[in-house]
Amino acid sequence: MIGEGFLKILAILILSWLMIRFGKLAINNFLKIRTRTNLRMVSERREATLVKLLENILTYAVSFIAIIMVLSVLTINVQAMLAGAGIVGLAVGFGAQSLVKDVITGFFIIFEDQFSVGDFVRIGQFEGTVEEIGLRTTKIKSFTGEINIIPNGNIMEVTNFSIYNSVAVLDISIAYENDIEKTERLINELLVTMPEKYEELVAAPELLGVQQFGPSEVILRIVAETIPMKHWYIGRVLRKEIKQVLDQHGIEAPFPRLVMYSRQGEEQMRNKESGRQ
Amino acid sequence: MIGEGFLKILAILILSWLMIRFGKLAINNFLKIRTRTNLRMVSERREATLVKLLENILTYAVSFIAIIMVLSVLTINVQAMLAGAGIVGLAVGFGAQSLVKDVITGFFIIFEDQFSVGDFVRIGQFEGTVEEIGLRTTKIKSFTGEINIIPNGNIMEVTNFSIYNSVAVLDISIAYENDIEKTERLINELLVTMPEKYEELVAAPELLGVQQFGPSEVILRIVAETIPMKHWYIGRVLRKEIKQVLDQHGIEAPFPRLVMYSRQGEEQMRNKESGRQ
Amino acid sequence: MIGEGFLKILAILILSWLMIRFGKLAINNFLKIRTRTNLRMVSERREATLVKLLENILTYAVSFIAIIMVLSVLTINVQAMLAGAGIVGLAVGFGAQSLVKDVITGFFIIFEDQFSVGDFVRIGQFEGTVEEIGLRTTKIKSFTGEINIIPNGNIMEVTNFSIYNSVAVLDISIAYENDIEKTERLINELLVTMPEKYEELVAAPELLGVQQFGPSEVILRIVAETIPMKHWYIGRVLRKEIKQVLDQHGIEAPFPRLVMYSRQGEEQMRNKESGRQ
Amino acid sequence: MIGEGFLKILAILILSWLMIRFGKLAINNFLKIRTRTNLRMVSERREATLVKLLENILTYAVSFIAIIMVLSVLTINVQAMLAGAGIVGLAVGFGAQSLVKDVITGFFIIFEDQFSVGDFVRIGQFEGTVEEIGLRTTKIKSFTGEINIIPNGNIMEVTNFSIYNSVAVLDISIAYENDIEKTERLINELLVTMPEKYEELVAAPELLGVQQFGPSEVILRIVAETIPMKHWYIGRVLRKEIKQVLDQHGIEAPFPRLVMYSRQGEEQMRNKESGRQ
Amino acid sequence: MIGEGFLKILAILILSWLMIRFGKLAINNFLKIRTRTNLRMVSERREATLVKLLENILTYAVSFIAIIMVLSVLTINVQAMLAGAGIVGLAVGFGAQSLVKDVITGFFIIFEDQFSVGDFVRIGQFEGTVEEIGLRTTKIKSFTGEINIIPNGNIMEVTNFSIYNSVAVLDISIAYENDIEKTERLINELLVTMPEKYEELVAAPELLGVQQFGPSEVILRIVAETIPMKHWYIGRVLRKEIKQVLDQHGIEAPFPRLVMYSRQGEEQMRNKESGRQ
Amino acid sequence: MIGEGFLKILAILILSWLMIRFGKLAINNFLKIRTRTNLRMVSERREATLVKLLENILTYAVSFIAIIMVLSVLTINVQAMLAGAGIVGLAVGFGAQSLVKDVITGFFIIFEDQFSVGDFVRIGQFEGTVEEIGLRTTKIKSFTGEINIIPNGNIMEVTNFSIYNSVAVLDISIAYENDIEKTERLINELLVTMPEKYEELVAAPELLGVQQFGPSEVILRIVAETIPMKHWYIGRVLRKEIKQVLDQHGIEAPFPRLVMYSRQGEEQMRNKESGRQ
Amino acid sequence: MIGEGFLKILAILILSWLMIRFGKLAINNFLKIRTRTNLRMVSERREATLVKLLENILTYAVSFIAIIMVLSVLTINVQAMLAGAGIVGLAVGFGAQSLVKDVITGFFIIFEDQFSVGDFVRIGQFEGTVEEIGLRTTKIKSFTGEINIIPNGNIMEVTNFSIYNSVAVLDISIAYENDIEKTERLINELLVTMPEKYEELVAAPELLGVQQFGPSEVILRIVAETIPMKHWYIGRVLRKEIKQVLDQHGIEAPFPRLVMYSRQGEEQMRNKESGRQ
Repeated sequence: MIGEGFLKILAILILSWLMIRFGKLAINNFLKIRTRTNLRMVSERREATLVKLLENILTYAVSFIAIIMVLSVLTINVQAMLAGAGIVGLAVGFGAQSLVKDVITGFFIIFEDQFSVGDFVRIGQFEGTVEEIGLRTTKIKSFTGEINIIPNGNIMEVTNFSIYNSVAVLDISIAYENDIEKTERLINELLVTMPEKYEELVAAPELLGVQQFGPSEVILRIVAETIPMKHWYIGRVLRKEIKQVLDQHGIEAPFPRLVMYSRQGEEQMRNKESGRQ
Repeated sequence: MIGEGFLKILAILILSWLMIRFGKLAINNFLKIRTRTNLRMVSERREATLVKLLENILTYAVSFIAIIMVLSVLTINVQAMLAGAGIVGLAVGFGAQSLVKDVITGFFIIFEDQFSVGDFVRIGQFEGTVEEIGLRTTKIKSFTGEINIIPNGNIMEVTNFSIYNSVAVLDISIAYENDIEKTERLINELLVTMPEKYEELVAAPELLGVQQFGPSEVILRIVAETIPMKHWYIGRVLRKEIKQVLDQHGIEAPFPRLVMYSRQGEEQMRNKESGRQ
Repeated sequence: MIGEGFLKILAILILSWLMIRFGKLAINNFLKIRTRTNLRMVSERREATLVKLLENILTYAVSFIAIIMVLSVLTINVQAMLAGAGIVGLAVGFGAQSLVKDVITGFFIIFEDQFSVGDFVRIGQFEGTVEEIGLRTTKIKSFTGEINIIPNGNIMEVTNFSIYNSVAVLDISIAYENDIEKTERLINELLVTMPEKYEELVAAPELLGVQQFGPSEVILRIVAETIPMKHWYIGRVLRKEIKQVLDQHGIEAPFPRLVMYSRQGEEQMRNKESGRQ
Repeated sequence: MIGEGFLKILAILILSWLMIRFGKLAINNFLKIRTRTNLRMVSERREATLVKLLENILTYAVSFIAIIMVLSVLTINVQAMLAGAGIVGLAVGFGAQSLVKDVITGFFIIFEDQFSVGDFVRIGQFEGTVEEIGLRTTKIKSFTGEINIIPNGNIMEVTNFSIYNSVAVLDISIAYENDIEKTERLINELLVTMPEKYEELVAAPELLGVQQFGPSEVILRIVAETIPMKHWYIGRVLRKEIKQVLDQHGIEAPFPRLVMYSRQGEEQMRNKESGRQ
Repeated sequence: MIGEGFLKILAILILSWLMIRFGKLAINNFLKIRTRTNLRMVSERREATLVKLLENILTYAVSFIAIIMVLSVLTINVQAMLAGAGIVGLAVGFGAQSLVKDVITGFFIIFEDQFSVGDFVRIGQFEGTVEEIGLRTTKIKSFTGEINIIPNGNIMEVTNFSIYNSVAVLDISIAYENDIEKTERLINELLVTMPEKYEELVAAPELLGVQQFGPSEVILRIVAETIPMKHWYIGRVLRKEIKQVLDQHGIEAPFPRLVMYSRQGEEQMRNKESGRQ
Repeated sequence: MIGEGFLKILAILILSWLMIRFGKLAINNFLKIRTRTNLRMVSERREATLVKLLENILTYAVSFIAIIMVLSVLTINVQAMLAGAGIVGLAVGFGAQSLVKDVITGFFIIFEDQFSVGDFVRIGQFEGTVEEIGLRTTKIKSFTGEINIIPNGNIMEVTNFSIYNSVAVLDISIAYENDIEKTERLINELLVTMPEKYEELVAAPELLGVQQFGPSEVILRIVAETIPMKHWYIGRVLRKEIKQVLDQHGIEAPFPRLVMYSRQGEEQMRNKESGRQ
Repeated sequence: MIGEGFLKILAILILSWLMIRFGKLAINNFLKIRTRTNLRMVSERREATLVKLLENILTYAVSFIAIIMVLSVLTINVQAMLAGAGIVGLAVGFGAQSLVKDVITGFFIIFEDQFSVGDFVRIGQFEGTVEEIGLRTTKIKSFTGEINIIPNGNIMEVTNFSIYNSVAVLDISIAYENDIEKTERLINELLVTMPEKYEELVAAPELLGVQQFGPSEVILRIVAETIPMKHWYIGRVLRKEIKQVLDQHGIEAPFPRLVMYSRQGEEQMRNKESGRQ
């Protein structure tokens, strides 16, 4: 009896393991065939998402069926257990509720195409590239390499950086002593030449004007529209180009300034008072 | 049997896909006809909102009907499933609750005209232009290009910048050594000429007076009413104009000040004490 | 059949649209008549609130009746739907709960006269003039022009600035080297002349005394009671007046101070130690 | 029929308006009689609270009875409505719950005499004088004039400043170069003479000693027990008195200190290295 | 009838007022007798707590019985009201829940002897001496004189400073130029003499060593065990004693240091570049 | 009757008081016997925990049985009261829920051996030595002497410092002008000799390298593994030893640096402009 | 009877203690055999996790069975107790709910392979190496040696650093006076030689460019991909290497800069004004 049960369980485990493995193969092959025949029903951007998702669903479905079969071999009646109400049922119900919420939210993320695998997103405190959208969790890879695993039910507001063009915002500080008109002319002359040089730029960057008067500097703001997620790169190259132009024309760097009044007064006051006693 | 079912499902999917596509076309065409005939029942501002919303409702309605039809082909009884209470029903009920709340809040946002597509709004931590108001989520595009997706149920307080005129607030710092009366006269003379020059200004900007005494500077506040969302632009040009006027008349920039007392005392005290040991 | 239903719906929509429009006219006319005959049952301050509120109630009531009538033409039984319990009923119940809470809180705000249209209030993080108190939401306009829409159920603590006189609080910093007695006498002489000059002042501002010793300055506090919401204006003019008096009498501005000990010690120590190796 | 109903409603409104008005008069007159006859059952401090509360209860009671009567004239059965369960009943129940909590908490505030009208209290983020304790809300007036309205149910922790004597805490900074013993002696000599001069002082203020060593100053702490809410006034006069004494005896003000090492090293190093290339 | 009822109510009120008054007297007398006969069952520390608590329980019990009796005279059946379920019952139930939680938590605070009247405790954001532990609220008096009233149900974590000895922690900063070894020897020599001088010290304070290297100073940490709540006093006297010893031996005070490199380079660079244009 | 009841209650109180007292004696004696016979079933570390816990359980159990017996003497049926549902039952149920959660969490803390009496732990905002683990609350003694009482149900994440070796982390700052290679060599030479000198060190401390470039200093990080909770002590002695070595070899202390450009420009500009007017 | 029961309980305790001990031995031996025969079904990384988990499950299972057996010997019917509803049942149900949630979440962490024993993870505020994943709690060891115990139900978002390569991010500050082009060339020349020297580097580190203009410095950003968790080590060695190269070529360290305007004006102004009085 026990031997027979053991063999059954072994068979279930091996079979489910094979199903998951070959199922994943099939999903990937189907993708390749479909790509060759150019029969495209969904955009390329969502394809990676769906492959990952199908693999994820396959694993969950096969595993849970296997678990229930193993339990039934062990003559444990799962259905009765779930229906068996009382304290245990209540507690399990609340636990499952969290699971259901994860799955529902996950479904809407994919149905509404909020983000796809490969997009750069910000969710709560995490920021990075979407690695996988699963039934229960979403995985996001930060640019420093770590992987963040977020239950779908915890995903409320989503910020997606990969859909529209990005905008690089540069705040250039110049000293108060400089001529603003001249500086603006120099920067504008530079900016119109930029789109030729850097194809990530969608249009010539724009010098908005005096954003703020700091305690020791005048801050000029420049915005540059770029193709998605290239604003950091464009920001860096623009900063360098502008600094070189400003250096060539003697526009001074805005080191902190301080106006100092030297005084001997207190010293004398102190002496006088000390003497008074 | 299986082949027949498969064909049915395929037909459902293709039909629903066609309905969504042509439905969207119809919505857009109806809009054009309506615009030509000048039969306007809602303000232009709400039109863009309604078009996006109708498309959104169409997609949801057709998709869900298709899903239920596919499930019934697969002989799965959805209604029984939903009515099938117990642990699963409870968990699903709580999940659906969140969905219902999203839809109700979305309905009131549109019914009360809290904001329309194209408005600049602030919702929670997000600030930007409304891209789409859907049944379940609202999309807001930040000025740096990323898209923020917010479930309607999470929208509590809304700040809308596009309904009334905006006000640019400028804090101009001048050094303590300057004559406040003269500075105010200079600025006031400049401000009255501004509305001619910049048509975004609704009226001449107003110099309110001394807002604060900083540690090294006197801060004057200027407010300028502009047409909606032009306060940033007006703020920038006013800053530049005012700086040029102040520079011309020698009103000094308020670099941080420091009064320094040089002293030799401690040095001597230290030496004396060192010698004492 | 379909044509008949369509005509019915059209009639309902047009009629409800007319009712809202003429209802609003009637409300405004009734107000004018009442004003002419001087039959005043509520204070002037609450009148604006009530007009806005009546319009708001009218819109909601007519709209919802129209929606129910349209649905009944479409042979959808709303009442049965609402009574139809189960998962859907539960979810809708929770959604409606939030709506009911908004309406109850809104009722108490008006019944207890917590604030009226035109008052300057602070609610949570928002501060501005009340634009409209509706059944479900309250609208507050910030002084920079944007409109904040707050569901009434989210309004907990309310701060109302328009009921009592406001108090301007001025912290005037003077240098430690100045004579406090003399400064206080000068300021007091100035303050008694102020109420004649500025009628927004309810009484002569009061110099409370030394509020704090800062690192480089002595801070004197002045309070000035003004008519509601004029404390910002009075604060600005008082600041200017006081500065002029202090300047005339040579009371020094409190630039940050620093006592500096120059030393050659470490340099020598370093050299000595470098030589030691 | 309609005319009759209208007259009934009018009568109800006028009667209830008269009842509220004369009720308030009666409450205030009863108070005056009671004061004349010196029949005092509650302390004077609680009297103001009770008058305000009675007026508040009167207004609520009469108004709600009037509303129910008007509704019954309109042949609307309130009781049936409240008993009418289902989704609406549930939602109203939850709304009423908040109202009940406000009333219960309000009852305990008065029963336990946590604070009375006229006390200076801090509740949550609000600080000021209690203006009114109502059945549902409490009103607190800030010292800058605005009125804060707090639902009683939101009042958790209460801080009451008007029951016990207040304590003014003064941190006096002196320079490190001064003699601590001498300074303490000077301050102590001054402090013992203070209670004669200022009757708000309950006892001579006490110099506790060296509270902290700051980067450039020694901080001495003084505490002074005063009658309730006079600690701000006493703090200001003590600060002035102490400064005058310290000035007379040449105890130096603690301007920030800095020990500076001038060096030419890096300059040379840089030159050397520039030359090396 | 009405007169009779009025007399009954009056009798109830007078009797309950007398019971509370004489009950309190009895509690205090019993305490005195018990103290004289030295029959002590609880520690002295808990006695004050219990007296306050008994008075508190007496007031609540008599008052509520009186209220119920008055209501029954007015022929209002409280019990039926409480049992009368429906919307009102639900709302009252939730309100009462908060009251029950307060009483249960209060019971455990006293049963587990978490703190007694007179102890110095920190509860949430409040810190001070326990004034009264009641059935529903606890009162804490801050050292600046205000009284904080906290519902017992809000008391979660409690920090009690009056049970064990306190420890004064002193961070003494000395300049980098000083000899650490010598400074430590000087301080240690001082510390061993302290317990004789100050009996609040349980043992000689201990110099732990170099706690941290600040930007301009070396920070030495000293800990001193004292009898409960005397650590502030001991901290102050130790600070003064140590400063005097360090002053005598020329251990320098750690004024902020700065190493300054004067340079003419940029000036020249600027001139050069200005000339270049 | 009343006398008899009174005697019964007295007997119950005295008996339960004796049971608690002798029960505690028995627990402690049993411990001593077990220690002598060396029959150890649990590790020494958990023994102190269990003794405290057993005493705690004994007190609760005897007290509650006594209370129920006293109540039954007073002919109050507790069981009926608890079963008596309705509003009171509901409220009591929720109050008891919190109590049950405390006991369950307390059970798991001991069963899983998360921490024992004497361990140094951090729980939420509290850090200190565990004084007692009770059925309902845990007591933690801070190093400054105060006792923190935490309900077990509030204990979520626990950080235990007493199980594994601690690691002291030292950040040593040196001036930019110093030779990093040489400094590292000097420190490494010192560190290898440390384990002989201080037995709290598990291995020679390790110099990790340049952790950060500060504005005026290079920060080197050193880590030193010590036996549990000795990292503060080792950190202090290492700091002193390293400073002495660096001083001997002339590695300079990293006082803040500043490069200063003196300029007369603005002064002249100001004069010029003043003259221009 | 009592003796028999006592013996039974003793037998249960000893047997369960033996089962736990030998069960753990068996688990570890099975692991060794499996390792020798190279029959690997799970990746090596998950093996450690499973061994710890099996031990954990064994302990829980045997302990709980033992407890129930002991209770049944004591003739306490656990099942009846659990089914016994009412106030106690409700309270226990809520307590158990938390336990169930811990177990469910723990199951998904292992099933989805979110992290394994030995991984470096961040969970909430804790960061460190996973020590054990149990049924109810997860243990994480910080790099400073303390152990953090987190209930699985509290684990929401997980960040795992051990799956993908890490990236070291270095921000190198240079003075404004330096030539950016030259500095970038020098750093790039250095970076290409790094992978040979340090095998933890996956590729040559990349110099991204000018990340930011600080007030006194230009900040260059370098990123270096390393094998997992070696980014701290690589960061330290790269910092040292780059500093040496920059020092050799005279690229100046970015000490804070300050432009100082010395002025005598205020002094004179003050004298003048003093004289005026």
